[in-house]
Amino acid sequence: MNITERIEIARGERPAALVIKRAGIFHLTTGEYESADIAINGDGVIAAVGKDYQGEHELDANGLVAVPGFIDSHVHIESSMLTPQEYERCVLKHGVTTAVCDPHELANVVGPAAFDYFFACAAKLTMDLRVRLSSCVPATDMETPGAAITADDLAQYHKKRPEAALAELMNVPGVLARNPEVMKKIALFDFIDGHCPLLSGRDLNAYVAAGVRNCHESTLLAEAQEKIKRGMQVLIREGSAARNLTDLMPLITVANSPFIAFCTDDRDPVTLLESGSINGMVARAIAAGAEPLAAYRAASWSAARGLRLYDRGLIAPGQRADIVLLSDLKACSVVKVIVQGKIVSEDTNSKNAVPCPDSFRQTVKCRQMTAEDFSSNAKGNVHVIGVKDGSLVTEHLYLPCNTPDILSVAVIERHGKNGNIAKGFVKGFGLSRGAIASSVGHDSHNLCVVGTTPEDMAVAVNALRESQGGFAVADRGAITGLLPLPIAGLFCDQSAEKIAARLQDTLKAARDIGCTLAEPFHQLAFIPLPVIPHLKLTDMGLVDVDRFEIIQ
Amino acid sequence: MNITERIEIARGERPAALVIKRAGIFHLTTGEYESADIAINGDGVIAAVGKDYQGEHELDANGLVAVPGFIDSHVHIESSMLTPQEYERCVLKHGVTTAVCDPHELANVVGPAAFDYFFACAAKLTMDLRVRLSSCVPATDMETPGAAITADDLAQYHKKRPEAALAELMNVPGVLARNPEVMKKIALFDFIDGHCPLLSGRDLNAYVAAGVRNCHESTLLAEAQEKIKRGMQVLIREGSAARNLTDLMPLITVANSPFIAFCTDDRDPVTLLESGSINGMVARAIAAGAEPLAAYRAASWSAARGLRLYDRGLIAPGQRADIVLLSDLKACSVVKVIVQGKIVSEDTNSKNAVPCPDSFRQTVKCRQMTAEDFSSNAKGNVHVIGVKDGSLVTEHLYLPCNTPDILSVAVIERHGKNGNIAKGFVKGFGLSRGAIASSVGHDSHNLCVVGTTPEDMAVAVNALRESQGGFAVADRGAITGLLPLPIAGLFCDQSAEKIAARLQDTLKAARDIGCTLAEPFHQLAFIPLPVIPHLKLTDMGLVDVDRFEIIQ
Repeated sequence: MNITERIEIARGERPAALVIKRAGIFHLTTGEYESADIAINGDGVIAAVGKDYQGEHELDANGLVAVPGFIDSHVHIESSMLTPQEYERCVLKHGVTTAVCDPHELANVVGPAAFDYFFACAAKLTMDLRVRLSSCVPATDMETPGAAITADDLAQYHKKRPEAALAELMNVPGVLARNPEVMKKIALFDFIDGHCPLLSGRDLNAYVAAGVRNCHESTLLAEAQEKIKRGMQVLIREGSAARNLTDLMPLITVANSPFIAFCTDDRDPVTLLESGSINGMVARAIAAGAEPLAAYRAASWSAARGLRLYDRGLIAPGQRADIVLLSDLKACSVVKVIVQGKIVSEDTNSKNAVPCPDSFRQTVKCRQMTAEDFSSNAKGNVHVIGVKDGSLVTEHLYLPCNTPDILSVAVIERHGKNGNIAKGFVKGFGLSRGAIASSVGHDSHNLCVVGTTPEDMAVAVNALRESQGGFAVADRGAITGLLPLPIAGLFCDQSAEKIAARLQDTLKAARDIGCTLAEPFHQLAFIPLPVIPHLKLTDMGLVDVDRFEIIQ
Repeated sequence: MNITERIEIARGERPAALVIKRAGIFHLTTGEYESADIAINGDGVIAAVGKDYQGEHELDANGLVAVPGFIDSHVHIESSMLTPQEYERCVLKHGVTTAVCDPHELANVVGPAAFDYFFACAAKLTMDLRVRLSSCVPATDMETPGAAITADDLAQYHKKRPEAALAELMNVPGVLARNPEVMKKIALFDFIDGHCPLLSGRDLNAYVAAGVRNCHESTLLAEAQEKIKRGMQVLIREGSAARNLTDLMPLITVANSPFIAFCTDDRDPVTLLESGSINGMVARAIAAGAEPLAAYRAASWSAARGLRLYDRGLIAPGQRADIVLLSDLKACSVVKVIVQGKIVSEDTNSKNAVPCPDSFRQTVKCRQMTAEDFSSNAKGNVHVIGVKDGSLVTEHLYLPCNTPDILSVAVIERHGKNGNIAKGFVKGFGLSRGAIASSVGHDSHNLCVVGTTPEDMAVAVNALRESQGGFAVADRGAITGLLPLPIAGLFCDQSAEKIAARLQDTLKAARDIGCTLAEPFHQLAFIPLPVIPHLKLTDMGLVDVDRFEIIQ
């Protein structure tokens, strides 16, 4: 800390490294506007806010509104299918200067090497990527992951990274049952991120009493309000598949503002390119009637304080010079982004590539599939996973197997551990023919396939075996859409634009076979996740999430 | 932490240690009321808030409102003239369950032994007394203290108490001038309390950029608003002499609430017995039109988060069971107080006495005084300290010495260091005859006397020499009022009621000789404090605080 330098700059006794001149600062403390200069120290910290500061560099912000850099309070970068460097290129220009990431998608495939990779990337990024240590790898013992991370593994790693917090504690039943392994993990960390969809009443009390600080899984207004009342910070999520902003909009008030924040959780490159990130949530919240003070607090100050980051979230002396310049406050139109006193440009992160180890490739290790693997002789009533467009929460249906739109679904273990194939039924995809498959299958990332015929299901799965991961569409024995994701079967090192285009083609192929879901591959990817209600399918079988057990 | 116990209690699988039944909880998060039970774990932590909890002990709170325990964000307990134990007896029953204290009055007389004493007392108290390490002993080098505490002393002590923050950094000029000793102190601590009356513009930027987090010295609304805009938390003060609540009332809004808190700073036993503590500030704020949510947040949650205490300030799972039960929310009528799950009773702290070392007595070491010591032959215009009732900020006047109500004032070094006697003039006490003297003289606590005749000034000072400290009133050669404060000349080990009665008699004696100030001894005690504008008198001479130098 260059305290003396900051003081000299603040007093005008030496020029600042950078001065943002004549900015219209929107203060997240009082909600006032102030037209002033922002004087920034060489260490990337704001030294002063006031009139007539001189700097070695000066940026004229006349006519622009200045707000603190945005914070994505919970994100899985793997869901963007991008490398962290490419992810930064997509979100930093939208004003996201801090992101809290949980690398548990990659960790479920490659283990703690995922932490190493993300910390190495974070060290090279321009934005502040706060890497959490994943708490639930695998999410449950009702699935087969590529790697498991125990409490002892976390204790070991925590020694290396004492500043790292524990990432979303999804094993709610484990907490409620005082599972010793879970209790051990909790005891290791001062700060614990949460994940407790639809948790309420006494169980919510128990979960919060265990020390969990926040939750990004609220889908209902009353649910979110109860969590806030119980002392949790609610991270309002707007992902590609899971979109909760509209339902939780009434939360975004000045009175609530200290207790909410925004996050994207899982966004694919199409959403990132079309809707940006936190900036888009701010604009939508204000358009829907939220007070700008409430929305902008949630986007930075509230997230920072809730996550116990005191050095950001305000445009004030001593705060990180993470600043977003807007041409329009209500529309949240980002014109320029300053991160730690550096003006972001096109090539800001162009030299930051971190090579990913060979062990992250060749991770789809299942055998060649045949139609027989997916044949079914079900009769009468069957358990059916009811998929609702835009929600990760599935319905547990029990219907005649010949009900319209009931399709076969299968999850195939792909880490070369046991060759499990689990089969079940799903409703809501609307396929009239063909099949779609994914190597992204939260959180163990086994292969997941939904189809109208065993033949096309096999064709789609075998295509992913070929490409070492990604999304595939099969139609009448041929592959009509394919997005390869060769790194851990989760992401690749192409540009967001390339991947988005390829994804669009694959989505079109899915629509061509009748798929009615807006985000079929996201919804497919969450079919195996047994920590989100109500009925899921893992490589071990059909899971009743409410009873937290395999029922078939 | 008994996480598993908490979870079991929350789920109703084991009885709580204490359940507060059917309380009307006023949630400082959403501002909602909730009628529910509060289940408290044996470790004094809330395990759950909800319906139908059973406990080994149960307290029926039907019809009462429950709010989190109050936090006095800045207090000098010595100013209560009480021992910490007796102070607790006075404020705990009013719902003050946490207080942040700066022992710098005692430290100026006895040095770091003051820290030992307060930490020892804190360890025995029921409330949570957070002892800070005093940053400015003495406040300046323009006065003679009983002891000085250097940056190295602080570094030493900080090793013993790494959790302790740095108490109010009053040496603003030292910060602005990058005084190396001050920079050393700043570098030692993560959290630094502030003190910057009337600081504004670039100098305020510099002070905040140095890392100072809050200020309790704002007397003007615009001053406080500027501090909040610059990222400071404003601790709204209502002491016995310095009363800022009325002027700062407009700050108390829901929007501002995260950035304000309440403190008492310096309250004498009369004020404590008549007006209580933070509870009285809450009631007055609401009566003046503040939203209860804003006032109660400032009284607990905002103070807690601003001071980085996450374990209190809400009635929610995982929070300290510091709870105040009110019969009336708006009037803040305290019926019962629960601190860490224990119900406060009359004898809650009766067994907590900490004997104070002999070195704290016999600290008034000046020689016998005579009239000659106070005689003056001033002619023409003189510098005059203009005292305003209820404000610590004095005016710097320059008036003919025969102007009505201009009285002699003197400060006598009393630590046996150099026998300094400094003399000057003061306006505003209104004495028509006699003199008043005090051994409380912030912050070095030399003797301070104001009088109409040199004879009575000597009589008053000699009386304090006799009593080893306190407040004295002399009239026509005799002592007509005396409150002895034999411990460091600052406090004594009597009950608040006894001291208050004695103080009332002494105040009456002061009024009998024409004194027009509501709190003459408080105002007298702040005459020597050269860190509050504008003109002050120390044992070294007349100090122009704005120029921060001795002018005579």
